[in-house]
Formats: sequence, C-alpha cells, structure tokens
Amino acid sequence: PRPRELGIEFGILKTGNLNAITDVPGVKVGHFTLHQGTDIHTGVTAILPIEENIFQNKVPAAIYIGNGFGKLAGYTQVEELGNIETPILLTNTMVVSTAIDALIDFTIQNPENKTVKSVNAVVGETNDGGLNDIRARVLTKENMLEAIASANSGKVAEGNVGAGTGTMSLGFKGGIGTSSRILPISKGGYTVGVLVQSNFGGVLQIGGKPIGQLLGNYKFKNIDKEYEEDGSCMMVVITDAPLNAKNLKRLAARAMLGLSRTGGMAANGSGDYVIALSTAKDLRIAHDSKEMYETFKVLRNNDLDLLFQGVVEATEEAIINSLFAAEDLQGFNGYKAEALPIKTVMELLKK
Amino acid sequence: PRPRELGIEFGILKTGNLNAITDVPGVKVGHFTLHQGTDIHTGVTAILPIEENIFQNKVPAAIYIGNGFGKLAGYTQVEELGNIETPILLTNTMVVSTAIDALIDFTIQNPENKTVKSVNAVVGETNDGGLNDIRARVLTKENMLEAIASANSGKVAEGNVGAGTGTMSLGFKGGIGTSSRILPISKGGYTVGVLVQSNFGGVLQIGGKPIGQLLGNYKFKNIDKEYEEDGSCMMVVITDAPLNAKNLKRLAARAMLGLSRTGGMAANGSGDYVIALSTAKDLRIAHDSKEMYETFKVLRNNDLDLLFQGVVEATEEAIINSLFAAEDLQGFNGYKAEALPIKTVMELLKK
Amino acid sequence: PRPRELGIEFGILKTGNLNAITDVPGVKVGHFTLHQGTDIHTGVTAILPIEENIFQNKVPAAIYIGNGFGKLAGYTQVEELGNIETPILLTNTMVVSTAIDALIDFTIQNPENKTVKSVNAVVGETNDGGLNDIRARVLTKENMLEAIASANSGKVAEGNVGAGTGTMSLGFKGGIGTSSRILPISKGGYTVGVLVQSNFGGVLQIGGKPIGQLLGNYKFKNIDKEYEEDGSCMMVVITDAPLNAKNLKRLAARAMLGLSRTGGMAANGSGDYVIALSTAKDLRIAHDSKEMYETFKVLRNNDLDLLFQGVVEATEEAIINSLFAAEDLQGFNGYKAEALPIKTVMELLKK
Amino acid sequence: PRPRELGIEFGILKTGNLNAITDVPGVKVGHFTLHQGTDIHTGVTAILPIEENIFQNKVPAAIYIGNGFGKLAGYTQVEELGNIETPILLTNTMVVSTAIDALIDFTIQNPENKTVKSVNAVVGETNDGGLNDIRARVLTKENMLEAIASANSGKVAEGNVGAGTGTMSLGFKGGIGTSSRILPISKGGYTVGVLVQSNFGGVLQIGGKPIGQLLGNYKFKNIDKEYEEDGSCMMVVITDAPLNAKNLKRLAARAMLGLSRTGGMAANGSGDYVIALSTAKDLRIAHDSKEMYETFKVLRNNDLDLLFQGVVEATEEAIINSLFAAEDLQGFNGYKAEALPIKTVMELLKK
Repeated sequence: PRPRELGIEFGILKTGNLNAITDVPGVKVGHFTLHQGTDIHTGVTAILPIEENIFQNKVPAAIYIGNGFGKLAGYTQVEELGNIETPILLTNTMVVSTAIDALIDFTIQNPENKTVKSVNAVVGETNDGGLNDIRARVLTKENMLEAIASANSGKVAEGNVGAGTGTMSLGFKGGIGTSSRILPISKGGYTVGVLVQSNFGGVLQIGGKPIGQLLGNYKFKNIDKEYEEDGSCMMVVITDAPLNAKNLKRLAARAMLGLSRTGGMAANGSGDYVIALSTAKDLRIAHDSKEMYETFKVLRNNDLDLLFQGVVEATEEAIINSLFAAEDLQGFNGYKAEALPIKTVMELLKK
Repeated sequence: PRPRELGIEFGILKTGNLNAITDVPGVKVGHFTLHQGTDIHTGVTAILPIEENIFQNKVPAAIYIGNGFGKLAGYTQVEELGNIETPILLTNTMVVSTAIDALIDFTIQNPENKTVKSVNAVVGETNDGGLNDIRARVLTKENMLEAIASANSGKVAEGNVGAGTGTMSLGFKGGIGTSSRILPISKGGYTVGVLVQSNFGGVLQIGGKPIGQLLGNYKFKNIDKEYEEDGSCMMVVITDAPLNAKNLKRLAARAMLGLSRTGGMAANGSGDYVIALSTAKDLRIAHDSKEMYETFKVLRNNDLDLLFQGVVEATEEAIINSLFAAEDLQGFNGYKAEALPIKTVMELLKK
Repeated sequence: PRPRELGIEFGILKTGNLNAITDVPGVKVGHFTLHQGTDIHTGVTAILPIEENIFQNKVPAAIYIGNGFGKLAGYTQVEELGNIETPILLTNTMVVSTAIDALIDFTIQNPENKTVKSVNAVVGETNDGGLNDIRARVLTKENMLEAIASANSGKVAEGNVGAGTGTMSLGFKGGIGTSSRILPISKGGYTVGVLVQSNFGGVLQIGGKPIGQLLGNYKFKNIDKEYEEDGSCMMVVITDAPLNAKNLKRLAARAMLGLSRTGGMAANGSGDYVIALSTAKDLRIAHDSKEMYETFKVLRNNDLDLLFQGVVEATEEAIINSLFAAEDLQGFNGYKAEALPIKTVMELLKK
Repeated sequence: PRPRELGIEFGILKTGNLNAITDVPGVKVGHFTLHQGTDIHTGVTAILPIEENIFQNKVPAAIYIGNGFGKLAGYTQVEELGNIETPILLTNTMVVSTAIDALIDFTIQNPENKTVKSVNAVVGETNDGGLNDIRARVLTKENMLEAIASANSGKVAEGNVGAGTGTMSLGFKGGIGTSSRILPISKGGYTVGVLVQSNFGGVLQIGGKPIGQLLGNYKFKNIDKEYEEDGSCMMVVITDAPLNAKNLKRLAARAMLGLSRTGGMAANGSGDYVIALSTAKDLRIAHDSKEMYETFKVLRNNDLDLLFQGVVEATEEAIINSLFAAEDLQGFNGYKAEALPIKTVMELLKK
C-alpha cells in the first residue's frame, strides 16, 4: 500500500485521482526494467507530456538545478528557449548517451519530422552503480524506445521499476515514486504532478518524524568516519496550469523544498535536477509557423502560490512513495539493498 | 526559553556554545530597535563577520537567491568577484538605500580607507509593512551606524529586535533568530552559524509536526479566498571553514532546505536570500596588494556534506527560534500580530 | 556633429529619426548635470520608458550582466519577476542609494500609488571618481527628482551631461550617447533604442579602425607597467517590439557585442550592465488585477535576429556618439580628461 | 597562408610560436575528417588539455553560454564543481551522444580508472546539416576515439577538417581555426589559446572592415525576406595561467566579444558556447585524495585584464583563420559552399 493509504499525510492540498503525474491530462509514463544475471539491475522511465508530436508542438519548460553533479542532457537549450521538444527519459548515469540517441530516433523517424536536423533530447539520470554493474552499459537504444512505446496514462508503477530499478535512497532501496495535487476550481482547478527517481542521501524523515534516526540508518551516523558519496534525485514536474518558462523555473525550484522535507540535503555528490513543463494546450509552441507572433494566456505571478505549495507536497510524497514501493534487491557484487521496513515505520509513526 | 531548551530537537549535529551565529569566532551582531508611537516598529541588524577592516580584508562570499522578489543590495558584485567588503545590514524594504549609505559612511570614514571610491554595500531586507508604517521611512543612517557600533560577540538577542522588530512569519510574530552547528574535530571542527530575519508565509511545522494546521493558523487555510501576498526571509550563513565563493554559494543554497522544514514554500512575493561567507583567516583577500597571486587552502568538494547538513539544521532551528522569541505586537493601523502560543505548541508537540 | 553626420557608418540597419533612444514612442530622457567648484563634476540621467504610471503598469524587462563589478540596484527582482516598475536612473557609484531614495519618493508620492509599500528601484552607475570628487557624495535626492521631472521626448543631449558628466572612456572623455535602429515594416517596423553611460577601458576602434593605437592612447599601451583599473559601461535598451522577459534578456546580451566593437573588453574592474525593456502596450503588467491571467502576444524566438542586430549596431554607435559629443574637462585634483580629437580621428578614418 | 602572414593585424598582444591553442604547453589537438560519397562531410575534433590522465587530475574549468541554442554535453557538472575530467570533443549536433559514449570509453578503459562509475563528458557541437547529411548520423564511436588517439601538440590543421569539415560561417565556408596570445614575462608570461568551430551567421568584418557587405554576402542582405536560421560557434579557451573556475568563466565570457568583432551577433538559432580551462600544474584536482584540503595559488582578480584582452583577440583571429583556411565544398543535396575569396578580400583590405 502507498503511505497515504496507510494514513500518512503530506500537506494540505488534495491529490488527483491516481495521486500520480498521470493525473495531468495527456501525460503518459512507461518503464523498461532490466534484471540480467546477478549484476545488472537497471532501467529507463519515459515521460510523454502530451499526446501530440511534441517536436512540432513544443511545450513551455524549465530545468532547475538543485545541485548540478549530474549528466542531465538538454539543459542549456531549455534554458535559452524555454521549451522542451522531446519526451523525457530517466535512466542511469552511464547510458545518457544511449537515451539521447533513442530520443533522436524517436523524433526523426516520425514522418512529420522528416526535415528535422536538430533535436534537443532531455534525459535525466541517477547513478545506480551500487546495485547495478553500471560500467557494463547494457541498456540499448531499443530498450529506451520500448519504454517510450509502452508509456500510457493511468496508474504508474513505483519502486524497483524503470529508472528506479537499481537506485538507493536515504539508506534504503529507492526507486520511482509519483504524486499529484489539485487546485480548487476557484483557483483554476489545475493539476500538478511529480515523478521522482530517488537515489539520494540524507536523514530520512516521514511526516516530519526522524525515521532514519529511529531506525539507526542515516547519513552521518558514523560522523567521524569518511562518509560516502551519495547519489542523486531526478524530479519531473508537470502541470496543466498555463505557465511560461520563467514561472515554470520558479515552480521547479520548489521541488527541492519537497526533497528537503524527506530529509534530503543535496549532498555534494548529488545531481538534483527538476524538469518542469506545462501541458496547457494554448501554450504549445509550433516548430514551424508563418506567424511572427505567439499569443500566451498565462497565470499572473500573484497566482502561483498554490502551485508552489502543490509541488512541495507532491515531491515529498512522491519520494516517500518511492521508498514504500521499493523492495529488497541484491545486486552487483552481492550488494544488498534493504527496502524500508514499512511495518516498523508505521509503528514508529504511530508512537 | 529557546525551543532546544524545551526539548525540541533539530537534526543530528551538535550546536556551538551559544547556538548562535556568534559561535563563529570573530562574528559580531548588533541590533537597533525602533518603536515610535503606535505606527513605527522597525529596526536594523548588523552582522560584522570579522574584527579587521573588512574592506581591506575582503572575505570569500556568495549570495543565493531562493526567490528574488526583494531589494537586497550588493548581489551582482558579490556574484562576479566572490567576496564581501562591508558588514551586512538587514532592515526593512524601504530603507535599503539608507543602509547602503550607512555602510559607505562606515567604510570611507575609516582612515585606512581614505582613498576608497567604490563600496559594494551588502544589505538585506524584508517587508515589515504590516506592523510598521513602512512608507514613513523613519530609520536614519545614524540608526544604522548605531547597530554597527553596538555589535558584539556573545549572545544574540532574538525575536522582536533589530530587523525583526516588525516582521511576521508563518502566521505568527516573526523576528530575528539564530543557531549554529559544529563539525567533529576529525572533520575540521568548523562552526557554521545562521541568522535569520523571518517574515515569510507557509504552513508552520515544528519538529516535522504540522503545528500551523493544529493551531488553525496557516497559509491557504481559506483556499478559495484570495490569498495574501507574503513577506520574505533573509538568511545569513557564516562559517570559519575554508571555502571558496563557489562552494559558499552551494552552502548558501542549503539554507532554503532548512526554511522548507519549517513549512516555508518560497511564495511568489517572498524575497528569500542567503548570504554566505567564510571567515577563514587564510582566505582574506587584500584590497590592495603588490602580489599577482593569492594562495587559498580550501576544503575539497568531497568534504562539504557535513557543512551542508549543518546549514539545513541551523536554518530550521534559527527560524523556529525567531518564532519562540518573538512577542505579541500591536502596530500600524492597530494591526495586531500574535506570538506563537508556546505553551500550546509544546503540548501539541508532546502528543 | 555626430559621427554619422560625418560619414561614419555603423552597421546595415536604418536609424530612427533622431537616432536616439527617444525614437521609441513614449520614451523620455532627462539629465541633471552638476559642476560645482573645481572638484565636483557629476550628474544623473533619468530614462522614463512609458508615459503612464509605470508602477501600476509594469513593463517586461531583463538585466544582463556583462561584468558584474558594479552597484546596480534592482537586479534580483527584475530577474525573478521579469518586469520593471520605476523609471531608470543612471548616476555615479557612490550615490546609488540617493537615487533609490528618489525613485521611492517618485513612486509613493503619486496618489495612485498611495498604498504601495514596496518599490524595486532600478539604478545603474559608473564611477566618475577620476574627474569628480566622488567621496563627497553631493548629489541630492532633489537633483535626482529634477532629472526625472525634466525628462522629455525628442533629441537627447550627449557627452558631458547627466550621468556622463564626469566619465572617461577608452582613454578619452566619455559621457552619454544614444542611437537607434528601425526594422522594416515587413518585420514589424519596430524601433530599438540604446542609451549608454560610457566609462570603460579598452583599445578604441571606430568603424573597425584601431584609432586608439593610431592616436597612441589605449589600455595596455605600457604593457609591462601596472595597468589601471577601468570603469564601467551602463547600457539601456528599449524597444517597442513585443518581447517577454526571457527574450529581453537575450536582447540585452547583444549590447555587449556592440561594446566590443568599440574596443571594449569588459575589464575586471568594469561594471557592464544592460537593462532591457519593452514598451509594447499589450504587454503591460497591471500591479493590481482581479484577473488570474495575463495574455501576451509576443514575437516568436525565430523573429529576433534583426532586433539582435539592431542592438549590436546601436550600442556601438551610442558609445562612439558619447565620445564624439564629450568635451575636454578638468576636474578633481586638477585631473584633465581630453576629448577625442575629432578632426584627427576623421583624418585617420579617411586614410 | 594565414591572415596574419598576409599582413592582417588582430589586436595588440603577441601571439605564441604557432599562433595556435597548442602554444599552451601540453595541449594536443586531433581531427577525424569524414567525406563519404556526395552527402557526408563531417568530422570530430579532439582537444586534450593535459598529458596526464585528466579524470584523475581534473582541471579547473568553466563553460560560458553566449547563446544556448545547442546540445553541448557536460555543462551542469562543470558549472557546479568547476572542473573538467575528460578531453573535449567537438562534432556535429546529431552525434553528441556518440561523442559522449566515446569519452566514457576513453575514460573507463584506462586501467587507472577501473573503478570509475561516473564520467562527465564534455562535448560541443555545431550543425553542419547544410553540407552534411546530418540525419544519417554516420560518425562512429571509433571515429571519435581516432580523433583522440591522433591528437598531438604542434601545428593545428584549420579549415575543412575535423568538426569544421562541413560548417559554414558568415556566408562562407567555415571550419576549424585557432590562435593564441602571450603575456609579457612581467605579467607572468602566460599563454592563452583559442580554438573555434565556426558555423555562425552575421555580417563579416575583417580587421574591422565590412567585408561581408563589400562582397555582397551577409546576413540580412535581403532584409524583407524571411531570414535563415543560423548555426553556431563553439569556442575552446585554454590557458596555463593559474585561474580558478570563477575567473575562467569570466575569461570565457570574453570570447563572445571576439566573435562580435568578426561580425557575429549571436543569432537566435546559434549555439555559442565557450569552454575555458586552466592547465596550471598546481591547480589539478585529484579525483581521489586522502586530504581534506586543496591549495590553490591563483591570479588575483586585478591581474586578469591582459588575459581577457588575449581571449578577445585570439577568438577574433581564430574565427578569421577558420575562414581563410576553409575551402570550397559541395555537399548534401548538391549544396555548394564557397570559401572566402581571399585574393579579393586582400584587395578590399588594402583599399
């Protein structure tokens, strides 16, 4: 069961129906999960923001860097132009190039894109090298395309799937997690959804309670010893609220506040990135157009706070969801990652 | 009593002796507090990082912008050159200019600086216009200089003092707060201290517990109504750990994670800035020098995590300290700010 | 006469009628110039982008930092929100605070702004401390307000006026300069205007010709000796083309390319800032609004190149204009700045 | 012959022996050039900054974004940590992923790096899709590794080689170009070298003279017609001067000023990136270290201007060098790019 079903609360706003990024209409998620022999435990997660050809119908977007020790692809063009033109792939650190390749294939093989000569692929990653033989780089372009092809709306698998197959977080088995929030109708009724690939370190808090310390499993426990480098957290934020790139960047920044509430502290070795975009239909940016102008109807700066709050809450919940869904995994070189002991956690939370 | 004395815990690291920014050797803090008639309730807080003439002995520094809806002075030069050359003043939004003037006076009146023709004053602010008739702009340059002159090491007054005199935070009376953390000797034994001027909105959490909701006083409570614009939070982070400007910026970024743990969400209207600097003696930057070179011995990137954790914890605690120390205040136009009801809070925390 | 009247060409685009920033409809410029005794030679220049109350009708804006060794006020809020809400004042480094104060007065004294409690004043500066006793800080708030009050459309005085009264540039007397470019009707017919306060160092080029070297007056001439710190360049770019803040930032960046073509190289000590804004009527941002949404019709990314080119050209020409208009000035401590020897320059250009 | 040999002057500083990036001791450059049938004309250029294993001995570095419409890989980690840990590859837009892969291979196949699980590959690109069938993506990882393997010090081939094989610039055939500058011994005697992959648009200037207009070949010539999207410019700046990442970023920024002096204006479609690094031996950053500290002896901020000037000059000259070295090329779909008509240009310059 998900934490919310067990009675844990995260914030004050309502969730969407699925409490998932797919609550935003049109968003699809697909996973490709690879367990191969004893040493390979990795995968890829595809997020398709809209149903249309996204290259021809770019979406306003921004990427916020919480801590930039990572290999995310596509940052500078998104920053310059304020839009995204491919699906988003999340995978492991050493196959970002394969994912870029897959997104270029995906784009240029679409007959509508037959004259396209430049594709800004957006790929995020975390390092699953503890449980996965990451140097082997076994994921193929075909695996990546399979994740895209399998994407659908509806419930999103969490835990040891896709890009979360081999990740670790806050001392426990990490993985994919997702959550969403809905604004009241009087405020536009918009949905904001978050999906995370959790692979970072810190001192686990759940509902504000210092569960990491209570379980005796947390970063800095042996403070005098050399501490380990930590992994990263990829966060994807999607909303149907009409926001321009500038405000999407501000929205993205709030995901780091959600991460903090789970006990994350953006360690030196962490690549913490937030990709945010709006699926609002009126904000699509035509790749080719005979028009000199574009017209955008967007939310005023003064009307962002509920969305900001939604992102904080949904990010916190998505990360905790990833831990609750993840399962024990023995991987590379026999390394064993233990899932969060949910029963014990629930007892601690009730104390 | 401060929250820690009441048994509330904030994180896993040890505090300094005073649990204050003045635990960092050499740091001095001074307040000028102004209550005048019914409508004026404001002030200024001065932070002097080092005992020497800071203009001639600049300190490595960075400023991180959590949300830039504010009037902080000095940002671009600190960003370009990586150092700070004046004390830091915090005050209200409408007298930043007066504070700049005061810092220029302070600098050029020092006989050692008699040829100085350019001063980059660093001034932070939040808007105390709810409790203070901020349009009256009554604080004078002399008031500002008095705050500097009165600065000393040792215990730091918190709550309704200095720049925190008229601030509100998280639905209650805000103010000045401070806290510190110490690294183990094996990790350098460094101190990192934080001082905040709390004036921001959100859903108050203490020790992770949703106190704002439990007290029925929090942002978004009346979600369908037009929500109010919120104020800001100024955070100053000082450490004696030897860090260059690049890593001080990364350190500063972690203060936003601490703010999040109190329930802050960096509202649109919030000017959330973190000024970070290192007092490490070997890192002083001579204003004039016949040398072409400077030699810096700094911590490696790999050895920052404990400092990052320290900033998260100390910022969270400094903000909560500001609320615990603040007192009821009736101000401008009869507006009344209530202090956090500590007794009730402690009961809620014990449940 | 201005260089263009003497036959010097700058680029390929047409200028506006006045070849000035005031070619953009509605833009007004005012100067206050102060010569006092032998040592005071300074001033302030006011740029009023629109005729309406700009606080209630904010304009999309961005500030680009070419080199951030300067004290410009207002940067972070413009960066965060993407708009400007006051006129722009340019003055000397040590009275930025006075200019901020003046802009706050100007704003809150307007009866329409009677409830305003927060004003983000935008003030640029360069250091005229060679010719002006800058430590004396004699410019008053009233002087600043006079510059605003005297602003008008039409021809703009150049050279030793306003904020350019005491500046030096590229080895000669600098000052205020302005220029503009117009797009063809088929491309929207927009105007882009630039105004500069030139006070920076380098190796003067005019029309690409190395005039500084030919005149034997240029930075690095005595390469083995200790080179002097240089001043700065403030650039203001205004267009009536409909651009959002993101594209205004890109537009602003191109002004540095224009500066380069005059021989500027953005020395370490230079505060090179570009403030860019759009006066397009449909893009005004209401301070207060009952609407949740704003609608913007803006130029597509693909249609920016002519504006980019216009900014490069107009900045180059505005800087050279400032040198041609400036006159000899003897100032502080008897220091004498010589104007560009125009006759000799024209002979050199004709060779 | 190179322009300088023909008597064209670029600035006031002396060049290195080779007037190439390889004047910086230890720097090696290698090209892989591919002409295949009528439609494939592309390649890759490798820059190896130091002779040692760069992953174990990272170099201080920064990347400056002049205009971010590009797919450069590695930006965010360089920005966060301030160092580069792989050679630099330049190639075409659609095979950045292949180049990343090659750099990971190069790194992890080194026995000294046998435990490495994370590699931040730095890859730049421009779009050679006019002359090259870029959608075919024929360059292989082996081609990339061959460019690395063939790298050597000494003279650098310019023009239609490596990553410049199929590029166009300023209306003519572009390509690879390089140049360098040397500081006087009294200023440290440092070398700064620049290598460019020129593929951008504008109005060609040589020695300040408007050659593009005189030849009737320049961007905006048919101002009323729809103007074409332009390509990009990749610039690599290497110095043996001891600079930290912050000042390397400032150094990198000056390359855009050099680009401007050739007539470039950073068009919307241009991906203009500058990668800057220091090879100073004392500044290497050990990947693994038992030390908590690093000691850096770097140039003071006040001693950067000659290096800044050197970058401006060397970038201008490198770009013009690329045009002088490039040759006519007929490529994809029969498209023919003409080389700069050097004889005519020299006549125009002598007028």
